[in-house]
Parts: sequence; C-alpha cells; structure tokens
Amino acid sequence: MHAAPASARNDKPAVVAAAMRVLADSGLPGLSMRRIADEVDVQVSALYWHFPNKQALLAAVSAQIVGSASEGRGEDAAAIARGLRNRLLAHQDGAEIVSSSLALGLLELPARAALVRAAREIGLADAAAEVAADTIVHYVIGYTFHEQQRLHAAVVGAADASADLAPSQVDEPASFDAGLAMIVAGVRAAVTLEV
Amino acid sequence: MHAAPASARNDKPAVVAAAMRVLADSGLPGLSMRRIADEVDVQVSALYWHFPNKQALLAAVSAQIVGSASEGRGEDAAAIARGLRNRLLAHQDGAEIVSSSLALGLLELPARAALVRAAREIGLADAAAEVAADTIVHYVIGYTFHEQQRLHAAVVGAADASADLAPSQVDEPASFDAGLAMIVAGVRAAVTLEV
Repeated sequence: MHAAPASARNDKPAVVAAAMRVLADSGLPGLSMRRIADEVDVQVSALYWHFPNKQALLAAVSAQIVGSASEGRGEDAAAIARGLRNRLLAHQDGAEIVSSSLALGLLELPARAALVRAAREIGLADAAAEVAADTIVHYVIGYTFHEQQRLHAAVVGAADASADLAPSQVDEPASFDAGLAMIVAGVRAAVTLEV
Repeated sequence: MHAAPASARNDKPAVVAAAMRVLADSGLPGLSMRRIADEVDVQVSALYWHFPNKQALLAAVSAQIVGSASEGRGEDAAAIARGLRNRLLAHQDGAEIVSSSLALGLLELPARAALVRAAREIGLADAAAEVAADTIVHYVIGYTFHEQQRLHAAVVGAADASADLAPSQVDEPASFDAGLAMIVAGVRAAVTLEV
C-alpha cells in the first residue's frame, strides 16, 4: 500500500489535467506515464496511487474527452452524433483514445445512452434502439479516427492530408453529415419495419 | 542505389508473404522490419530495395488482406460489406492495418469501388453513391476495429472479451448485420429522397 501523497498537485483531477496537456502537446504517441509524471512534477510511481495502470489513466482522459451524461438530452440522433464527433475532434487522437477505452470496457459513453433514448423516442423497440446507437457510434468513431489518422500522417509528412475515402469534391463536414443522414434515415426506416 | 538481390527468396511477393506470416504469429505490434527480415532470412536493408519505408510494406500487406478488385461484382451492398468484414477478421489486427493504409492514401479498397457500383445500380446519383460507399466502409472498419481491439485486450488480459458496445443479448455477427441493415435501408431511402 502507498501512503496518500501530501501534495495537492498530485490529486486525481490534477493528474488527468496534466495528461490532457501532454495530449494537446504531443498526441497519443507522446502520452507516456513518464511525460505525465514530469508534467505533474512527481515520480512515475506516484501516478499509480490513483491509477492501477496506464489504461485506467487513459480511460479517465477518455471520460474527460467525451463529457458528461447530462449533455445530449432532448437532442435528436444527428445532433448527438455531431456533438460526439466535435468532442473527439477537439483533442489530438481523440477518436483513437476513446475507441481504445471503449474496447477495454473502461468507458461509459454518454452519447451512446443519449442515442438509445433518442431512438426509443422515435419509436424503436429496445433491442433495435441499442443497435441503432451502436451503429451510429461506430460510424462516428470510425469516420473521425480516419480523419485524425490522416491529419497525423500529414503532420509527420507521411501522406498528403487530401488522401481521402470521401469524394474530393465534397468537403469533410458535408461528407460526414451526408453519411450520417443516410444512417439516420435507416434508423427511421427500422421503425416502419417493426410496425 | 542498391543492386538487385540475387536470391529469389527476397523478391517482393516473398517479403509480403513473410510479413503475413509474422502478422499471423504476432499481430501488428510484432510486425517490425527486423522480424520480417529474419523471416525472409535477409538483412533489414534488403527490404528497402522493394519498399521505401515500413508504411509502403504495410500497404502491400493491406492490399493482400482486402483482396482483388474482381471480388464483389454483382453482389449487393450488404454482401460486399460482409465480405470486407470477413477479410479484415481473417487477419490479426486486419482492421487497424487497413485503416492506417487508407488514411495514408496508400491503398485502393476494391470493396469501396464495388459499393459505389452497387449504390449506383439501385439508383443513387454519383455523389450520393460515393457517400453511401464511404459510410458503409467507415461502419465496417469501425465495427471490426472495435471487435479486434477487444479480442486483443482479452488476449493480453487487459479486459474481458465481453466488454462491448453492443447489447449483451445480441451476438456479434447478428449485431453487425442488424446495424448494416439499418445503413442499407438508409442508402435505399436516399434513392427516394433524390427522386
């Protein structure tokens, strides 16, 4: 057992805040326990008083990125999806960090719960509402991950930022929204199919 | 300039085949130029005679994973999407490698071209067919990436394989197909919207 650290700069929120600063500076590749400890000005071992491992710390960073559960109330599915995308885009490698925390089962995604509610409100049964929410989440994370990978590749000079799945005449937000509109139309069609 | 290597075991297809074996053994984290060179039984520098950098070699691996352009002809969008997913699932970290090569602009995805054709055949205009194809590709890669990250996390003991976006009562292929059906319904609805 460790003793609680005396310094307030090493409380849990301070560690997460430091990790967010390192992420903003250096992206996910630079987000090491060593860099975070340096940023807080403690030994690496002090971080483990709050987090059992790096995955747990990244999950706390992910939770910060995706925001609180109170957002998205009363919004429709498209607005919730755009809100999630904007949160991921607001942080370097946001989609990759969040995707990884979800895969490890270490993160509850408020946007997913909001999407399930929105799908139920337009008349989907429970199982179909869960499928609709997961489908939209996979699209948003998949699309945004691709976008951020391209940005990263362009920054390191490995590729042109214009390397693109999307048709070149369509700009990025328009292409995201057009795909999202197709999925939402499909979700609405699922209501009709069930009736 | 390097001289062409004398040994046939160091031709380009042999290097890609060696990389596929390393991938099968060790996944993407183990896929180093050193390991591939050892597998071919050459010096690391010999690999650079065929590939300017590791990204180019990974793109050749990705091309092998996603298959040739002749597949998917005459299939509908759902069948093409399932075919792509099966190809990604057939290789450790398949979704991550392919996703990265696409982001770098180093890979043509035959399934994307097939999806554009399928969308046009049901009546979508060119721009809408491109959006439909990208939306389905993002869903397939996003879904499968999540699935393979979870598998990887379970293997290294970092998480339970049941950590899941999807509702626990729905098994994996059923959940993928249900989401895909919603997107395809939305693509079909786009035909009506345009008319």
